[in-house]
Amino acid sequence: MDVAQLQASLSTHFAPWVQDLQLSVVEASAEGVVLRLPRSDRIERIGGLVCGQALMAISDTGMALALCRHFGAFRAMSTVQLNSQFLKPLVAQDGLAHTRLLRVGKSLAFGEIEIRGARDQSLVCTATTTYALL
Amino acid sequence: MDVAQLQASLSTHFAPWVQDLQLSVVEASAEGVVLRLPRSDRIERIGGLVCGQALMAISDTGMALALCRHFGAFRAMSTVQLNSQFLKPLVAQDGLAHTRLLRVGKSLAFGEIEIRGARDQSLVCTATTTYALL
Amino acid sequence: MDVAQLQASLSTHFAPWVQDLQLSVVEASAEGVVLRLPRSDRIERIGGLVCGQALMAISDTGMALALCRHFGAFRAMSTVQLNSQFLKPLVAQDGLAHTRLLRVGKSLAFGEIEIRGARDQSLVCTATTTYALL
Amino acid sequence: MDVAQLQASLSTHFAPWVQDLQLSVVEASAEGVVLRLPRSDRIERIGGLVCGQALMAISDTGMALALCRHFGAFRAMSTVQLNSQFLKPLVAQDGLAHTRLLRVGKSLAFGEIEIRGARDQSLVCTATTTYALL
Repeated sequence: MDVAQLQASLSTHFAPWVQDLQLSVVEASAEGVVLRLPRSDRIERIGGLVCGQALMAISDTGMALALCRHFGAFRAMSTVQLNSQFLKPLVAQDGLAHTRLLRVGKSLAFGEIEIRGARDQSLVCTATTTYALL
Repeated sequence: MDVAQLQASLSTHFAPWVQDLQLSVVEASAEGVVLRLPRSDRIERIGGLVCGQALMAISDTGMALALCRHFGAFRAMSTVQLNSQFLKPLVAQDGLAHTRLLRVGKSLAFGEIEIRGARDQSLVCTATTTYALL
Repeated sequence: MDVAQLQASLSTHFAPWVQDLQLSVVEASAEGVVLRLPRSDRIERIGGLVCGQALMAISDTGMALALCRHFGAFRAMSTVQLNSQFLKPLVAQDGLAHTRLLRVGKSLAFGEIEIRGARDQSLVCTATTTYALL
Repeated sequence: MDVAQLQASLSTHFAPWVQDLQLSVVEASAEGVVLRLPRSDRIERIGGLVCGQALMAISDTGMALALCRHFGAFRAMSTVQLNSQFLKPLVAQDGLAHTRLLRVGKSLAFGEIEIRGARDQSLVCTATTTYALL
């Protein structure tokens, strides 16, 4: 699946509330998938910081899309666990979430996500996640 | 802060996109805070399952409100890490997220969240989280 | 499997280095398994604090034994992930690790562990873990 | 602190039970610290697999040493949380744990650890961790 197909999958397989984040797929390769989270008042909490809820949501979404790309199609799967660390705030800029698949086994897949500021490239959040392949 | 004050805080201190979940505070005591996540097509992904992104969002929100209640007012804080385990799908029912503060220190606070189906009380998700108190 | 059988399993199925912790099984029921970690200079780091490495080791061991008890026998399994939060130091006392199975599915099992001081019952560490059943 | 000084710190500041792992510091630079976990029957569970307890212990130890190197001396700190994912077994070979500091703030530090087989370089475990700087 290329960038356009993954972008289409975002509108088909994900909840409308997740689509509200207006994520765009900006890269997709064997290395992983990169999503852009556009800056918006809608995801900022008091003080202008992007809320952690949005960063966790983009992490989970990135992993799902990286697995779609890996398998060449959307397939049934579910998140087993997702662990996020918040290093510093994301303020006044878009976010870029780089998802890398660490291992895809028969029934489990492992990945990691790094979220950086799109403008200053500073690392704001890292996540690791395990998915069950159904 | 009582239930009504925490509910008001939800509209003031949280991002509009988080408010879209239409969470309601249903309990607040020294034991912790209980949030209800109403069933909605907006948070269901393909198959009618509530998306994990919403469960993580309610976990983070529950912890923030439990700390507001503990301190008697909203105060500056940030999520350091949040780890979620997804035990089974939440389908065709509201969710109830029970947040319990495990320890509140000078600079760090620890909590855990259990999310259950509001109708069948089955455990669907557990999370643990660490917050920095600023 | 009762307490004595689980204790015997500790000597058979676990690495000698883990056995060096001299854990004892003090309870085993449908509620879960309780392990005691005896105080020892061997697991104290500078300052007399029990090292986090020992607390993580007891968490993983507790989950494995709780699953043995659940299935009535040792069976092949592996840890998929384990997440520990360290709330406060464990000093100058034994530790008690309470493991509770949250869900045992066909291929995955979920559990949580609380470690308390044996003397003062204060909560020092919580962990959540996912196991793959092979 | 160079490799020899970090190796000396391992004998001074860590619990004897952790020293039993006979870890050696093989690299130390601004990029991070690499520890070698030698193969030993002492850390193998039934089937010849290196036990997860040892992999978690090396992760925590690697982070502590990476922070020592960063600060140029051992300083008081404590693990706030450590999350490990186990991708595949480590069998019949040494392990190499690469620790990278992601962010060192005033009161918190964040790191990640990758453990690979020393012979085949396959990734067996990843961990992320948060430390409190005291």
